[in-house]
Amino acid sequence: MRKPEGARVPTGRLRKAPENFVSPELAADITRSGLDDTRRRLLKGSFLAAGAALAAGMSRVAAASGKAPADDPMITQPRPWSTMLGNPVAFHPYGVPSKYEANLQRRQSPGLTPTKQASVAFAPLQGFFGIITPNGLHFERHHQGWVDIDPGQHRFMINGMVKEAKVYTMDDLMRLPSVSKIHFIECGANTGMEWGNAAVPTVQYTHGMLSCCEFTGVPLKVLLDDCGADLKNGKYVLAEGNDGSSMTRTISMEAALDDVLVAWGMNGEMLRPENGYPLRLVVPGVQGVSWVKWLRRIEVGDKPWNTKDETSHYVDLMPDGMLRQYTSIQECKSVITSPSGGQALLGKGFYNVSGLAWSGRGAIKQVDVSFDGGNNWKTARLETPVLDKCLTRFNVDWVWDGSPAILQSRAVDSTGFVQPRYGQLHAVRGTRSTYHNNAIQSWRVAESGEVFNVHVE
Amino acid sequence: MRKPEGARVPTGRLRKAPENFVSPELAADITRSGLDDTRRRLLKGSFLAAGAALAAGMSRVAAASGKAPADDPMITQPRPWSTMLGNPVAFHPYGVPSKYEANLQRRQSPGLTPTKQASVAFAPLQGFFGIITPNGLHFERHHQGWVDIDPGQHRFMINGMVKEAKVYTMDDLMRLPSVSKIHFIECGANTGMEWGNAAVPTVQYTHGMLSCCEFTGVPLKVLLDDCGADLKNGKYVLAEGNDGSSMTRTISMEAALDDVLVAWGMNGEMLRPENGYPLRLVVPGVQGVSWVKWLRRIEVGDKPWNTKDETSHYVDLMPDGMLRQYTSIQECKSVITSPSGGQALLGKGFYNVSGLAWSGRGAIKQVDVSFDGGNNWKTARLETPVLDKCLTRFNVDWVWDGSPAILQSRAVDSTGFVQPRYGQLHAVRGTRSTYHNNAIQSWRVAESGEVFNVHVE
Repeated sequence: MRKPEGARVPTGRLRKAPENFVSPELAADITRSGLDDTRRRLLKGSFLAAGAALAAGMSRVAAASGKAPADDPMITQPRPWSTMLGNPVAFHPYGVPSKYEANLQRRQSPGLTPTKQASVAFAPLQGFFGIITPNGLHFERHHQGWVDIDPGQHRFMINGMVKEAKVYTMDDLMRLPSVSKIHFIECGANTGMEWGNAAVPTVQYTHGMLSCCEFTGVPLKVLLDDCGADLKNGKYVLAEGNDGSSMTRTISMEAALDDVLVAWGMNGEMLRPENGYPLRLVVPGVQGVSWVKWLRRIEVGDKPWNTKDETSHYVDLMPDGMLRQYTSIQECKSVITSPSGGQALLGKGFYNVSGLAWSGRGAIKQVDVSFDGGNNWKTARLETPVLDKCLTRFNVDWVWDGSPAILQSRAVDSTGFVQPRYGQLHAVRGTRSTYHNNAIQSWRVAESGEVFNVHVE
Repeated sequence: MRKPEGARVPTGRLRKAPENFVSPELAADITRSGLDDTRRRLLKGSFLAAGAALAAGMSRVAAASGKAPADDPMITQPRPWSTMLGNPVAFHPYGVPSKYEANLQRRQSPGLTPTKQASVAFAPLQGFFGIITPNGLHFERHHQGWVDIDPGQHRFMINGMVKEAKVYTMDDLMRLPSVSKIHFIECGANTGMEWGNAAVPTVQYTHGMLSCCEFTGVPLKVLLDDCGADLKNGKYVLAEGNDGSSMTRTISMEAALDDVLVAWGMNGEMLRPENGYPLRLVVPGVQGVSWVKWLRRIEVGDKPWNTKDETSHYVDLMPDGMLRQYTSIQECKSVITSPSGGQALLGKGFYNVSGLAWSGRGAIKQVDVSFDGGNNWKTARLETPVLDKCLTRFNVDWVWDGSPAILQSRAVDSTGFVQPRYGQLHAVRGTRSTYHNNAIQSWRVAESGEVFNVHVE
């Protein structure tokens, strides 16, 4: 065994400590060179500048890059929050966003569904940074509304082609070996309203059935082993939820033994009720409907079950009139989230253009961005970490000259697959599909700076 | 330029689609083999099992691994939430945890400080999974309380040894090239109550001034370039906050030009007010006090400022009576979060022992876990991704035989540094410090299964 090396002494500055922790000399030192000094310097500058501004009759103006500090009263005059006693710690035992962020919400698309229990609330991608989706803004897709299940009353069963059918409590599951992985989850119907034309105004509605979290759970393989699943004849598993819709989905045994998780953790805490608390399936790279929420049962079988949500829904209508079933993997896709539809540029000049890319088949290898509707492309920077079946954040520099522009992003994944244009997707898939639209998204920037969703074939 | 390859056709099953999306034949197919069938099978099993249970006069018992499904009424009888219409989407436009998780809170240590505005709220590490800290449970450390600053009114200034002092609005900053990085943040005083003995009962209080988020912002280097910082004579920067305490900290120019961010994003959304909304400094690997919140100013200078929080606080009292200043980097450290003090094992048998490891100097290379107070060690599994200056989640299998045990974890970082025992740390640092305690933590498991904080030298 390796032996500890002992504590390293960092190379800090050393000086004699007073007998009492703060000596009179040290206190004087602090007064002379410490915080008070810093404050005084700032205030002195403030008084002088405020006086000059008043004398010149200057009005209060918004500051911009390059503005001299003395011109801006928000710099030169004390701010109210710098002279007050703030709020105490643990004021919110569970914290909430700033009151100035109240407009950043998940939203139902008006008129999309006749009932709000079998509906969608879209995530506000236009306000997101990085790759992690805050749990409070994770998209929602329910088939009979969400429930808040007492974890003490929840049970998870494995049955079917197993040596021994077993029932697990949450305590049973959470004692087992767990793993944590960051993965995207995308509804198969994401961007489903956009097949034929630019139908909805913002990225929240075009691409907002997309989120990305760190999930923690026990690999399904561990549980299948525990029950003695028949791996010779058992080619499929059925996952079943415990809400009113009893959502059921067939998953191949190959995937079940690979990276599927029976998960309870989401971004460090327990799943939210809207996302399947206390237990959901995590099926990396596969459309969200298979990530069965409020998971109560896995059945091992020798053929697909052809359940309602595998036959009437979540099937792809092809141009020749055939229905394609079990096309569950979310292909390589990307979208620019800022600037995006409904936003407005502040004026000419430099912008950081930012977006998200992902692939259900692996990692993102490259993202190119066009500012002229696909004629010229510039390779974007990818933020690390770049992970398999996970969102990847890209950023690219752009100087807007004030003339109309069409912004597009195009992702390439680790299999070499290139995200298609609408023309390419339509040629193969037609225009009557609902699901699995991974075409390149176009945003038109008008001379006014306003950004609009447009269809570019 | 690379050309798009066009849309790949996934190898799904094909069958003839009806003219109307759901034909009578398809509907019959669904009824025969779809959801209804699945439901019927489960219910049939339920009725039979419930009848058998009643006939045998069996009482309602908690299920455990290996229990036959028919024995558990929570499996055999319909659950209330499986027969109800759930809640609608966007019921919470910004979601909240399950009502069953209400006890997982950040908490002030009773009596630690005389006022709650200059105090600490600890993060409940015992309930965390993976590495991401949910924003609502991020630890808090304020010096004059927290404020919720209107981002439209916030200004950020760079002055001092620069060609041109500049003022930036939030809009100015958010147009600049940004990066996103996952990093831990730890207060220099974390584990500060534990220097001499095992003082507090739970990992929330021993190690809860620790969090880990994905931060998004503009590299400070970009802004120093923009202002023409004097890199020949400017060896330090001072960061200043905009709350009542006007927290000020000196940072070396070397760090400022490396990976320091002027950040607004935290786990995908804007910073929370308690964490510096709308702008804070991110100083990877360095103690939290330097991650100045409500950031209003960076000054470039040629010597350290010796501010209050660099002289009377955040200094290390050494055994020879000297005070060590500017020891800001958080050395390699780890802690087992489950099981941990205040928890109780459910009985003999298998457990997944889980914890967190981190180093301000790089990545975690290895974590070893001992179940006998440091005599024998077992190498833990590290969850990916393993990132620089970031929490790493470790897991290790353990079969508890019911006898008393002492659990410890020991991390090794990419520099080869090994987390020290208390004996090793005390030999170098003495016992009168408050800050930078990175010693190995010990948890004693009693025969009852209860877990206690104990000091092992």
